[in-house]
Amino acid sequence: MRQVLVAGIGSTPFGRHADVAVEALAARAADAAIRDSGLDKSEIGALYLGNFVAGPLSGQEVLAGLVADELGLGQIPCSKTEGACASGGIAFRHAYLAIATGQCDVAIAVGAEKMSHAGTAAVTSALNCAMDNLSDGRSGLTFPGFFGMVWNAHAARYGTTREMVAAIVQKNKRNGLSNPLAQMGADLSLEQIAAAKPICDPLQLYDCCPISDGAAAALLVAADRANDFAGPRIAIAASAQTRGSPRLAGIGNLTSFRANVDAARIVYEQSGLSPSDIDLCELHDCFSIAEVVDSEDLGLVPRGKGAVWAAEGRTAVGGEIPINPGGGLLAKGHPVGATGLGQIYEIVTQLRGKHPNQVKNAGVGMTHNLGGAGVACTVTILKRTDA
Amino acid sequence: MRQVLVAGIGSTPFGRHADVAVEALAARAADAAIRDSGLDKSEIGALYLGNFVAGPLSGQEVLAGLVADELGLGQIPCSKTEGACASGGIAFRHAYLAIATGQCDVAIAVGAEKMSHAGTAAVTSALNCAMDNLSDGRSGLTFPGFFGMVWNAHAARYGTTREMVAAIVQKNKRNGLSNPLAQMGADLSLEQIAAAKPICDPLQLYDCCPISDGAAAALLVAADRANDFAGPRIAIAASAQTRGSPRLAGIGNLTSFRANVDAARIVYEQSGLSPSDIDLCELHDCFSIAEVVDSEDLGLVPRGKGAVWAAEGRTAVGGEIPINPGGGLLAKGHPVGATGLGQIYEIVTQLRGKHPNQVKNAGVGMTHNLGGAGVACTVTILKRTDA
Repeated sequence: MRQVLVAGIGSTPFGRHADVAVEALAARAADAAIRDSGLDKSEIGALYLGNFVAGPLSGQEVLAGLVADELGLGQIPCSKTEGACASGGIAFRHAYLAIATGQCDVAIAVGAEKMSHAGTAAVTSALNCAMDNLSDGRSGLTFPGFFGMVWNAHAARYGTTREMVAAIVQKNKRNGLSNPLAQMGADLSLEQIAAAKPICDPLQLYDCCPISDGAAAALLVAADRANDFAGPRIAIAASAQTRGSPRLAGIGNLTSFRANVDAARIVYEQSGLSPSDIDLCELHDCFSIAEVVDSEDLGLVPRGKGAVWAAEGRTAVGGEIPINPGGGLLAKGHPVGATGLGQIYEIVTQLRGKHPNQVKNAGVGMTHNLGGAGVACTVTILKRTDA
Repeated sequence: MRQVLVAGIGSTPFGRHADVAVEALAARAADAAIRDSGLDKSEIGALYLGNFVAGPLSGQEVLAGLVADELGLGQIPCSKTEGACASGGIAFRHAYLAIATGQCDVAIAVGAEKMSHAGTAAVTSALNCAMDNLSDGRSGLTFPGFFGMVWNAHAARYGTTREMVAAIVQKNKRNGLSNPLAQMGADLSLEQIAAAKPICDPLQLYDCCPISDGAAAALLVAADRANDFAGPRIAIAASAQTRGSPRLAGIGNLTSFRANVDAARIVYEQSGLSPSDIDLCELHDCFSIAEVVDSEDLGLVPRGKGAVWAAEGRTAVGGEIPINPGGGLLAKGHPVGATGLGQIYEIVTQLRGKHPNQVKNAGVGMTHNLGGAGVACTVTILKRTDA
């Protein structure tokens, strides 16, 4: 496998884009990534586009071809990838593989979603496409309900409390306040978080990511092209994609997702790094409790301590392992297919030393993207490798 | 790139599967492909699933993970690929690439679609997700309308007539009669075809593929595993994926699809073969006129002669270049995401010498899968390579 570098990144703000089609959002982010790299678009040999629900919500598929056409790319292979909320991470991994395995020297990964126009009921129904609708979906379960059960399981096993989890919400919402791409940053007291309206017990309003529109993109190149673009060398040190059970009944222990654990093991093996080498992580906090479980599964925080460490400030910018310094899904937003690429955007910005919530001496960053009830997961380690 | 073999194939019948979910159809075909190969499912290192409209029509995504779970596969990467009607071909190409580039030694590609439960209006709306809905779709164009224009352009340039095109319908419908997997084989006179009810002038009923449910799958292995499964060595001699314009206004000449021409050029270059080396082809006759254009674009038939050659019997089984001996989309059916894998199933069966419409001495076969208005295309050359 050849070494692959991230040469360019682009993103729209996450939030509400009322008058822009999903393919136009994707093209904006991709165009920004190409310009950021300084490379010529004619060099791009493959395009992967992560999207989840443009079919049900916008009546539009073939987004990969539409975006390539809008960008004026060549007659290259253009594929949409889908794995629910991990769709963007899957697109990034395939662009990486296209270069790592020698299919082409330059590739682009784009993620995009547009949801806010459809209304909450339609969005909830579309998001439930990520469940097994012959079992969990038919029972009336929604994702807030699923992660509410995860919370209860974690509380029962480890004594995790409302107050501890509120520290995660407070951290991510505050981080989002200074991220210009974030949809819903806020400076909230722990009391405000604990007093917010209930969504699905024990989840309350601020425990849930918002409904978002947005797009993000990354332009990848083979490492031997490092002299052809400006900026530091940021290499993909590891990339993993795994699967877990698609349904509640297949998860023996709700305080851990097997796809997370497997993906973490793979990226540490691939990179030769260990959790203590990771300087920061953008992970999939679709709900506050998901950050607890994910941070433990990735080995960044001791088992059972995900919320405790947040409450102790250890996962803040400046703490032992900064988690979601960009605001995470809770504050930055969760335009589903874009989220995995949005995380790449955040980490690359950090490794360039240009982030509004800069982690000092950030040299190794991780992204973690999770689909459905843990049915699909991607984890990436990015490393600054100035030669 | 390592050589890759097709070790197993599986398919459901194409047609109406009223009481079976799309993921169950996919699992049936995949399970049949695994059993056909005789390999153990624990060896499978990647799963790709081609699907187009399970989101809008079945409210179900994450099909790749659902099917892997149903099959009892390992914690492997499972990705859905989408490129409209070429979704299955894209899935096949990615399973091929996973092995060819050394990511794993065994991979499975599955394609599936379920449409018949949704009703014609919902299906037409879902199929239009393959258009650019900010231009063609908004104008009221449907795919019968688009291919009607293609027919008129071909008739104007080359003098193609109703009678000539009817020969394609007659051939494919008759081929379908003896294919047990086919949905709508028929023995039709040219008069019956020309007297059928109009759909979208000049297209009439039998010029259009039916609405179909179904799934097909192929199990691929690295060539050094050839001794581990029964049956002849059938190698993937070439695999291409290209893109074309997503909309009518981007197609300068409606009698050819650029994505077809580019993909054909690539597979001939990759394989070192020429059109005269191809013994038979399963190509994307979503409408009768599409077979005309595709067969010319692939170089199998002289430019302008696609319908003439059919009328002269040259594309029949026993003719110079048998096209769609399995019945094609017109007779076998078009469960959209499954079609590309269904074509692989047909060609592999031919290369094994086991097809009900067997082409004598079939040693090299081609498949061609086209998405939307030519926005995505995959072409594969399969070759029997008994060592």
